Amino acid sequence: MSDKPAVNKPNRPDARLPKGFRDVSGAEIRAQSRMLATLAKVFETYGYEPLETSAIEFTDALGKFLPDADRPNAGVFSFQDEDEAWMSLRYDMTAPLARFYAENAQKLPKPYRRYAMGPVWRNEKPGPGRFRQFMQCDADTVGTDNIAADAEACMLMADAIEALGIPRGQYVVKISNRKVLDGVMEVVGLSGAESEDRKLIVMRAIDKLDRLGFEGVRLLLGNGRRDESGDFTKGAGLSNEQMAQILVLFEVPSFADEALAVQRVPNKAHGAELADVRVYENRRVDGIIGGISSRVLKSARGLDGLSELRQIWSQVKAAGYDDGRIRIDPSVVRGLDYYTGPVFEAELTFEVKNDDGQTVRFGSVGGGGRYDDLVARFTGERVPATGFSIGVSRLLAALTALDKQAIKATGPVVVLVMDKDRVDSYQKLTQTLRQAGIPAEMYLGTSGMKPQMKYADRRGAPCVIIQGSNEREKGEIQIKDLIEGAKASAGIADNKAWKEARPAQVTVPEADMVAEVRKILARHG
Amino acid sequence: MSDKPAVNKPNRPDARLPKGFRDVSGAEIRAQSRMLATLAKVFETYGYEPLETSAIEFTDALGKFLPDADRPNAGVFSFQDEDEAWMSLRYDMTAPLARFYAENAQKLPKPYRRYAMGPVWRNEKPGPGRFRQFMQCDADTVGTDNIAADAEACMLMADAIEALGIPRGQYVVKISNRKVLDGVMEVVGLSGAESEDRKLIVMRAIDKLDRLGFEGVRLLLGNGRRDESGDFTKGAGLSNEQMAQILVLFEVPSFADEALAVQRVPNKAHGAELADVRVYENRRVDGIIGGISSRVLKSARGLDGLSELRQIWSQVKAAGYDDGRIRIDPSVVRGLDYYTGPVFEAELTFEVKNDDGQTVRFGSVGGGGRYDDLVARFTGERVPATGFSIGVSRLLAALTALDKQAIKATGPVVVLVMDKDRVDSYQKLTQTLRQAGIPAEMYLGTSGMKPQMKYADRRGAPCVIIQGSNEREKGEIQIKDLIEGAKASAGIADNKAWKEARPAQVTVPEADMVAEVRKILARHG
Repeated sequence: MSDKPAVNKPNRPDARLPKGFRDVSGAEIRAQSRMLATLAKVFETYGYEPLETSAIEFTDALGKFLPDADRPNAGVFSFQDEDEAWMSLRYDMTAPLARFYAENAQKLPKPYRRYAMGPVWRNEKPGPGRFRQFMQCDADTVGTDNIAADAEACMLMADAIEALGIPRGQYVVKISNRKVLDGVMEVVGLSGAESEDRKLIVMRAIDKLDRLGFEGVRLLLGNGRRDESGDFTKGAGLSNEQMAQILVLFEVPSFADEALAVQRVPNKAHGAELADVRVYENRRVDGIIGGISSRVLKSARGLDGLSELRQIWSQVKAAGYDDGRIRIDPSVVRGLDYYTGPVFEAELTFEVKNDDGQTVRFGSVGGGGRYDDLVARFTGERVPATGFSIGVSRLLAALTALDKQAIKATGPVVVLVMDKDRVDSYQKLTQTLRQAGIPAEMYLGTSGMKPQMKYADRRGAPCVIIQGSNEREKGEIQIKDLIEGAKASAGIADNKAWKEARPAQVTVPEADMVAEVRKILARHG
Repeated sequence: MSDKPAVNKPNRPDARLPKGFRDVSGAEIRAQSRMLATLAKVFETYGYEPLETSAIEFTDALGKFLPDADRPNAGVFSFQDEDEAWMSLRYDMTAPLARFYAENAQKLPKPYRRYAMGPVWRNEKPGPGRFRQFMQCDADTVGTDNIAADAEACMLMADAIEALGIPRGQYVVKISNRKVLDGVMEVVGLSGAESEDRKLIVMRAIDKLDRLGFEGVRLLLGNGRRDESGDFTKGAGLSNEQMAQILVLFEVPSFADEALAVQRVPNKAHGAELADVRVYENRRVDGIIGGISSRVLKSARGLDGLSELRQIWSQVKAAGYDDGRIRIDPSVVRGLDYYTGPVFEAELTFEVKNDDGQTVRFGSVGGGGRYDDLVARFTGERVPATGFSIGVSRLLAALTALDKQAIKATGPVVVLVMDKDRVDSYQKLTQTLRQAGIPAEMYLGTSGMKPQMKYADRRGAPCVIIQGSNEREKGEIQIKDLIEGAKASAGIADNKAWKEARPAQVTVPEADMVAEVRKILARHG
């Protein structure tokens, strides 16, 4: 309840949403629907089937499957039904997939590939840009160890980003393998249960490479780091030699920027430079693989990871995605204790201004990796899986940053009601526009001319249709182009001159209305 | 928790959903998405804006707005957050619209028109075909008394149904007005607070006219009715004269069937017969309006309703929807104490077999009407509104009944993995198909030829791509048309004959793969 005294509000509830929830309307929904429809189409081209599970599950069936152990308090919204069983709203798409697969394994093709798009709910403290309900979009392949599924996930992410209109060279899908990092840590003496905590600190530190840079990560691998606000984060306490062994893995990305420069050849010239990019990328991967290889020789797990990286790269190359679209980058970690093999991340490389006005790379818009034992909780049977999430709101923000039009849209043509006794004929004009496929509406309020024009403005109407008694007698209508009109009126100072010029206004026979409106729509794209 | 003993299942949760919830997958989602996208397009042609409110609201803000007072126990799923405030999952789209409008009235154009599509939740006892989560699809106009908004809602419903592929003549949008029924009841002496209960019984009875017929309704208006199972429903206890006065209103529908017969002229001949249908419909409406008119002379409310009916019909006629698409039908009641003026209902008139094998009219797929005081609860201000709901699952069932294909779909082309060392080249074949826009996948499991063919069958693959070492050496691939193959194999008894004929199988150069696959896809539509 509100803290305000309920003066003049006898028993009236406040019209507001709980914190962390929001309404989405108009152009933003349209942009999101378009985006999701495009993604769905690409997923289906890759053979993924749509799946829409129930939003509500038994709490025990959801279990805990959150990829991000940084937030152990990550809560779910739960309630009991009449039978006292506890139910919860899904907090991600993976836990319901596990339940669905365990329940229907007999009926499903193997491997089973599905995509899911829909809201998820988190009972957490909301913050700026952090909501308690948000859209999630996942694609997973369940029931196979085949590393080809991981290679494909990366190609799919690249294709999906391009299908949305982000040009080649402005994004990159980066791949690494958790087993490689495990192997290096094993070799420097971080293995066994007693090292679990330090391994977590190391992974968390590497995950921050982008943000903190090399020096910041070095501090976190050593004794710890004090940030600008004075807060101290405890380090992993590695020796200088251990540190060096691990860090050398990530010196490779200095390479990356150089390669990226090559890759940023404008699209038109892309064909000409493509061979160079490919040569460069493959030489770079050889360097990375050679570097890792010398470091993990003594770790079976590390060698296994290296072999998987090689296989993925080989498939990426065969399919032609080695032109900078997909790259091997050992600094990719993706969360903490969830993934078990290949991990991948899709990043947008173009620059935008952040909230502080600084120019920064747009950054991650999704990613994922391989996780084992999706359903062991239910069945005791090991079922490996791999998949990824698309950050729906991040990606929508990126599309908006690239092209503001994506979220701006033109409203319907508004037919004004000049004479309330003639509603029938305005209705007919409106229906004529609609039947021609032109979004249109007759003004449905009860106010006069001026508020009607204001309404049309507010709706973003490209034009209004006017038929007074004069026009009606002659079988004509008047069309006012509101967009052109606004421009013209900015250039005409004098009211009298305006009346004489009557810019952006035409009078035509009723029969020509559709054709004239189409001209105006075409003019404003 | 399950009642079964937990033998061999140490701490393992059951993989199942709570009763009344379900998963939707594959073809059904695709069909639903297509349907909703079509509806959205029609709504936008009419100038409605999309709105997606939060699924979770403060319980006090949702209030009680359920249209169906038949189910007073209709419950909502509720829970408390950390601040102990009660929140609930929305149970319809109208209560959140009220909250949204009250919260944002200053910013919204007036009138405000929005459509909403999404899941709603009811904490009720589930039954066959009755789920606790289901899709709702609403369109409403808020903030105007203008009866043109109601006329438009009816035309919109007609256009939406046709846009989905249901032909003219197979549906009808019926309109009535609650004020007319109120007026008739007033005239026969049912008015004032003391008659509320009996008025409810009368409305409930009329709402069942379709199911119980004239005689059944007569019993419910009188002393009561005993159904086949022996259950007795108490009647309104009207006198014979009161009954006759009310029932005469609904004798008109006998007309309706005759008109429907005229209207059922096949679409092709529709132009030729259109004038007749229009003449008939308008004569019918004159009859109905005349009949009502003589009965409600002494009721201001009844006369008001009659005038609204007339205005709506006049607009329907002006826009050309008086050809049987929209009809006036006094038997439409739509729920109980929610609506205050025009009420409308969209009905599919074609016949289907019900679960008992009987042939029945498909029936209602949506409807709505005018309701006042949408937001008075919040603001104290009267804000009239009108709108309707589409029964998403009912309509989807109708589309499926009309054309089974709507819910059947072809799977992706499957590229078989004949030689595990050659995954790279299979990956490349797969990507070539995808880049041509053909849904395709490489088999991602680890099994041999036979399970791979079984997988392709299970996925509904139109064909598979095969490349063994023979083909590879020659730069060729083999394509097996699975649909044609299944037909052919049904006709070939002899295994040897089969091997010689090799029906539905071609070997072509790799470069021709896309063209050949396109031929097969074209063959199967």
